[in-house]
Amino acid sequence: MTDPDARLPPGFDRDGAGRLVIAGRTAEAWAEAAGDTPLFLYDGGLVEARVAALRTALPGEVGLYYAVKANPFPPLLRRLAGLVDGFDVASAGELEAALAAGMPAPRLSFAGPGKRSREIAALAQAGATLVVESAGELARAIAIAGETGKRIATLLRLNPPFELRGSGLRMGGGARPFGVDVGEAPALLARMAHPAIDFRGFHLFPASQALDAGAIAEAQAQMVALVTDLAAHAPGPVAEVHLGGGFGVPYFPADRPLDVAEVGRRLRATLAARPPALAATRFVLELGRYLVAEAGVYLTRVIDRKWSAGELFLVTDGGLHHQLAASGNLGTVVRRNYPVVNASRGGVATEVAHVVGCLCTPLDRLAEKLPLPATRVGDLIAIFMAGAYGRTASPGAFLGHPPPGEILA
Amino acid sequence: MTDPDARLPPGFDRDGAGRLVIAGRTAEAWAEAAGDTPLFLYDGGLVEARVAALRTALPGEVGLYYAVKANPFPPLLRRLAGLVDGFDVASAGELEAALAAGMPAPRLSFAGPGKRSREIAALAQAGATLVVESAGELARAIAIAGETGKRIATLLRLNPPFELRGSGLRMGGGARPFGVDVGEAPALLARMAHPAIDFRGFHLFPASQALDAGAIAEAQAQMVALVTDLAAHAPGPVAEVHLGGGFGVPYFPADRPLDVAEVGRRLRATLAARPPALAATRFVLELGRYLVAEAGVYLTRVIDRKWSAGELFLVTDGGLHHQLAASGNLGTVVRRNYPVVNASRGGVATEVAHVVGCLCTPLDRLAEKLPLPATRVGDLIAIFMAGAYGRTASPGAFLGHPPPGEILA
Repeated sequence: MTDPDARLPPGFDRDGAGRLVIAGRTAEAWAEAAGDTPLFLYDGGLVEARVAALRTALPGEVGLYYAVKANPFPPLLRRLAGLVDGFDVASAGELEAALAAGMPAPRLSFAGPGKRSREIAALAQAGATLVVESAGELARAIAIAGETGKRIATLLRLNPPFELRGSGLRMGGGARPFGVDVGEAPALLARMAHPAIDFRGFHLFPASQALDAGAIAEAQAQMVALVTDLAAHAPGPVAEVHLGGGFGVPYFPADRPLDVAEVGRRLRATLAARPPALAATRFVLELGRYLVAEAGVYLTRVIDRKWSAGELFLVTDGGLHHQLAASGNLGTVVRRNYPVVNASRGGVATEVAHVVGCLCTPLDRLAEKLPLPATRVGDLIAIFMAGAYGRTASPGAFLGHPPPGEILA
Repeated sequence: MTDPDARLPPGFDRDGAGRLVIAGRTAEAWAEAAGDTPLFLYDGGLVEARVAALRTALPGEVGLYYAVKANPFPPLLRRLAGLVDGFDVASAGELEAALAAGMPAPRLSFAGPGKRSREIAALAQAGATLVVESAGELARAIAIAGETGKRIATLLRLNPPFELRGSGLRMGGGARPFGVDVGEAPALLARMAHPAIDFRGFHLFPASQALDAGAIAEAQAQMVALVTDLAAHAPGPVAEVHLGGGFGVPYFPADRPLDVAEVGRRLRATLAARPPALAATRFVLELGRYLVAEAGVYLTRVIDRKWSAGELFLVTDGGLHHQLAASGNLGTVVRRNYPVVNASRGGVATEVAHVVGCLCTPLDRLAEKLPLPATRVGDLIAIFMAGAYGRTASPGAFLGHPPPGEILA
């Protein structure tokens, strides 16, 4: 059988007794500290290391924003507030969470196709930056600025007229609800020359979960070229350009980690060649998943071990109510296993099991045909890649179970 | 263009002004009553009518249980407690909710592959019925009964060795985490002859979301035959047999509603032909989705209307954080539109639009290429079939939006 630890992600290891160690303590010690299972553990050291590596790879002039939607756990937000240059928020709730975490409002940008007017008012009140997604939204923002007496710092979001090759979720290249089409941009930029609007620049986000450095670099170059073309229509200097995120993480065995050094090299070249009109522009990357996904582990305990029709099932106390994406029910067509191991014991695989959640539905599969050492009731199972789009991207109220624990380690 | 109301489900209509009427009031009146959008509305009258129609169609001796997981909204549970004979619960949380709704513990059955020991203790304490899913769980139940000094009423769940043809979610026919394989049943039944265990009978649940009456009837006949074979091994009389649910609802245009009269006719024949050993047995159907899905509407308001690459997008204040299934991200491979209409105005379709949610993710699609009358910002959009697996089966915390309203009308 294959080595069950072949997929232990970087930053995780086992102690001499074969127990999984996370941020210096065994998984079992963390479960004891939490008082119960299941739980999410986020290794803050891995997040810090990831940000540091990114800073090294990227041009120093490039700003780094964290997309709160990836994981809004308050202690994690507080840690990230000291590491990155700003947060991208997508609701009034995230705006509040970001402010509570200590990120100053001028370093917050609020994007999203369906902002409520009260959300625009809240961001105006706080002094955060509005990412305008449509003509209608701009009109509402101008009206709200009039009511509140506050100028609104604004980026115009463009729907990129190109695709980011090989990305997991495309958000550009064709008809999209995000931002405005390029052809519509000059008219909107003209309308942004309004005393209520503090025009700051542009926002683009062509895709997410891309692992091909060349494709990301190419999209970034296309975005800079596009902004260069549109700068002449802008009502003022282009102070800021958000070049999206899109940096993916390797969920599956065939995935190769993104070559960020290559992305950085090519972005440096792109920026070096930019026109004088963008010389003073600050470029920003917005990353969510890439900063936190690999730092997170979901730990769940085996409640039952049973055979059916010759196949072994390990039934756990966790499930898709906490980790929907791992069950294959969020944005994936073909279900594949996330990296999953027995956290209580190592050793060679001696059995193959389906790891399922506790929910009374056949959708609740956490790993299929997983090679494992002989696994006992009471063992902890670790599901990696759980730092992003985990707890909050899952139907936590489904079947009435208590919420999972969450710890920033 | 096609009639946009072609898919208005039974029980819903428009007033003279073309406004959607739900339980006697316009959608707009309900939104005003709720104070905000989005909201879920459940028409209690439609639920009552559904239960009454089922009672007429089914043999009078057949009990009807409601599966709380489909929709645990407390006012709906209270209403259903007066309509059905029992509730099926799947967690200690659902057990509590069922008791709080007024359903007596002896009419509660607790199924699920991953029950915590504390959940088994809670059901023993309350006096609910345990649906045993494995040898390991039976051993735990015996130990817990010993500790609490309470005998536990118990049904043995069998993994049906056959498929229910044409069902949406198969839970039998092959290796499954639910119940025990038939070959294992005699040994378990022998172990259930224990003073701590009050053997009550069997539980089977071959599938859910089936629309073919013949397939359901056939599966029910197979279940009765299987129980007939196993009754000889039982440690006592078979007082109760749960024949699953599986009754589907028509989500999509090609779906034909289930012919429950046919199911009832054939179940009557199956039961009439049962052997003397099962003469005193009470048969129970457990239905969740079938009782409530069609009674529910999700109402969301259009925030923005925008064009991109020649396609029209209506951006709403709702989304997959409330209605994940409608976005095609729960248990479906190919996304299809639920029935969706403009609730503020009727009339012939004059445009085709994508209805999207407010979340900043391309997954948040509520309807694609939907024919609509000319729809304005501020109009209400109704997404039908929202009474089951809606709010609690969706990632409510995703992107930090407030919870939707919920009203039992």
